[in-house]
Amino acid sequence: MEILREIIKGNRRAVAKLISLVEDDFTQAEVVLKQIYPYTGQALVIGITGPPGVGKSTITDRLTKSLRKKGKKVGIIAIDPTSPFTGGALLGDRIRMQDLSTDPEVFIRSMGTRGYLGGLSKATPATIKILDAMGKEIIFIETVGVGQAEVDVVKVSDIVILVTMSGMGDDIQIIKAGIMEIGDIFVVNKAEQEGSDRLVTEIEMMLDLKPEIKWRPPVIKSVAIKGAGIQELEEGIFRYINYLKGSGELEKKRRESTRKEIIDLLREKWGNLFNKYIEEDFLEDVITRVVRRVEDPYTVTNRISDILIKSYRLGEKI
Amino acid sequence: MEILREIIKGNRRAVAKLISLVEDDFTQAEVVLKQIYPYTGQALVIGITGPPGVGKSTITDRLTKSLRKKGKKVGIIAIDPTSPFTGGALLGDRIRMQDLSTDPEVFIRSMGTRGYLGGLSKATPATIKILDAMGKEIIFIETVGVGQAEVDVVKVSDIVILVTMSGMGDDIQIIKAGIMEIGDIFVVNKAEQEGSDRLVTEIEMMLDLKPEIKWRPPVIKSVAIKGAGIQELEEGIFRYINYLKGSGELEKKRRESTRKEIIDLLREKWGNLFNKYIEEDFLEDVITRVVRRVEDPYTVTNRISDILIKSYRLGEKI
Repeated sequence: MEILREIIKGNRRAVAKLISLVEDDFTQAEVVLKQIYPYTGQALVIGITGPPGVGKSTITDRLTKSLRKKGKKVGIIAIDPTSPFTGGALLGDRIRMQDLSTDPEVFIRSMGTRGYLGGLSKATPATIKILDAMGKEIIFIETVGVGQAEVDVVKVSDIVILVTMSGMGDDIQIIKAGIMEIGDIFVVNKAEQEGSDRLVTEIEMMLDLKPEIKWRPPVIKSVAIKGAGIQELEEGIFRYINYLKGSGELEKKRRESTRKEIIDLLREKWGNLFNKYIEEDFLEDVITRVVRRVEDPYTVTNRISDILIKSYRLGEKI
Repeated sequence: MEILREIIKGNRRAVAKLISLVEDDFTQAEVVLKQIYPYTGQALVIGITGPPGVGKSTITDRLTKSLRKKGKKVGIIAIDPTSPFTGGALLGDRIRMQDLSTDPEVFIRSMGTRGYLGGLSKATPATIKILDAMGKEIIFIETVGVGQAEVDVVKVSDIVILVTMSGMGDDIQIIKAGIMEIGDIFVVNKAEQEGSDRLVTEIEMMLDLKPEIKWRPPVIKSVAIKGAGIQELEEGIFRYINYLKGSGELEKKRRESTRKEIIDLLREKWGNLFNKYIEEDFLEDVITRVVRRVEDPYTVTNRISDILIKSYRLGEKI
């Protein structure tokens, strides 16, 4: 197949086109994704996450430049919390990364979070596969925010770098408690700020509470905008990669992400089934009865489920 | 039914117990939820969202105190981004709200975000219904973070208050672009900080770009910790409620949230189907074949879907 060959060769236009197809018409993209699948599994996937404003893009930028000097081919997927209502990524590729995008061995793609029906959870693993098949050796996934997106990052990444900084208010305590467990490496960025050392100590103390960990996440101070701490971070990454490979953890992580992907694809498939068999008029009528308290949502859901199963004929393409 | 009567009477222990049941064993809770459903639909649901550290809890706290002075009964659901891996809400009820929790007419509940399989999207609408049935007139849902949780807040709330503040770094621009559309009222909190006026202007400018809006979201400056701006915010809320009711938008919003709830319940139901019919050994074997590139995830998902449908017998309880 022409397109398969172009992707493997690393043709940027073919890659961009296929990613757009993934976003716009997954069923059609699936035909190509099946073909490229045997060529995937080589790249290391690094998730970079943390609260807004801590400097995740700058860190990704600096790491990428450093990896490029060592000849590594890099892909970057930047997930923007764009509106689930309008769909598109409002800012497109991040401005700060513009100098990277002239490097032919760096491929950058922004993706918007597109509401709760599939969207990101389906498109991100597919995009990783495409960048992997095109020959990228390291793929960064950068997300802004705290919540579902972070969880999804963990489940598709081999490594998660959790970036934070001092002076972010009370909520940061909650966030720290909440996403502490997802970090394989911690970064306290903007370390010139007051309170950074205290934050490092706090994180170390939380890590001390973790029972029997095989990998003790390093806590690295950085001033990414000046390049400080980046080399240390890169060393931490490679140390973690060695640990992952040596301990069999990499295989385990990849199994987990495959499991999640299958379940997400299944959910998507059933969403399509719903769209195909539940007519809008019927649904509107059901909603009216529920809103007017004639029926409850639990009873009508059971009925809809029965209708769907009845409508589905085995082997039929949905 | 005993429990139904206790909920309607506003028995706090019965309410707390039912919410725990919703979190722990939804199938069992559903029996009671069906019964209380006719008593719901009275409360107004107000979502309070925005990036970490902007003072959402303080605003909720102050608004609640003000509404209590007017005799309104208030429920608060605080959604904490706790670990999806351990499950529990690490911080429990927020410390800042402790003085509220001695008021018998205020009911506060913290809920943790519990991973991607159902969890919050199922438990939140159910908890709203319980607080509604117990007689709360205003129910706040407070979420920390930016992402899926915010989207979910929108879909179950009648009003969304988007809280922000100046000086949160570059990412805030992206967030603003992304979640701009979900706010019915904007609050620039900690307004004593430099740059607050500029932020207000920026938000107003973004609102100017919105084509043909029927409700122009007010942008309110506040220093919630000192109570400044809270009265204005409360007035904004009641103005919006009047608009919602007068324009028929409330009915429209409630229809949308009912639609979402049905779809979420359906998804949950199918998740249970998966757990029941797909044996772990079989799934492990499939994952091995996919990880080793013997098969691709798209093909195996189709096969699993067929197995599920074949296994499901109509009318069977799942």
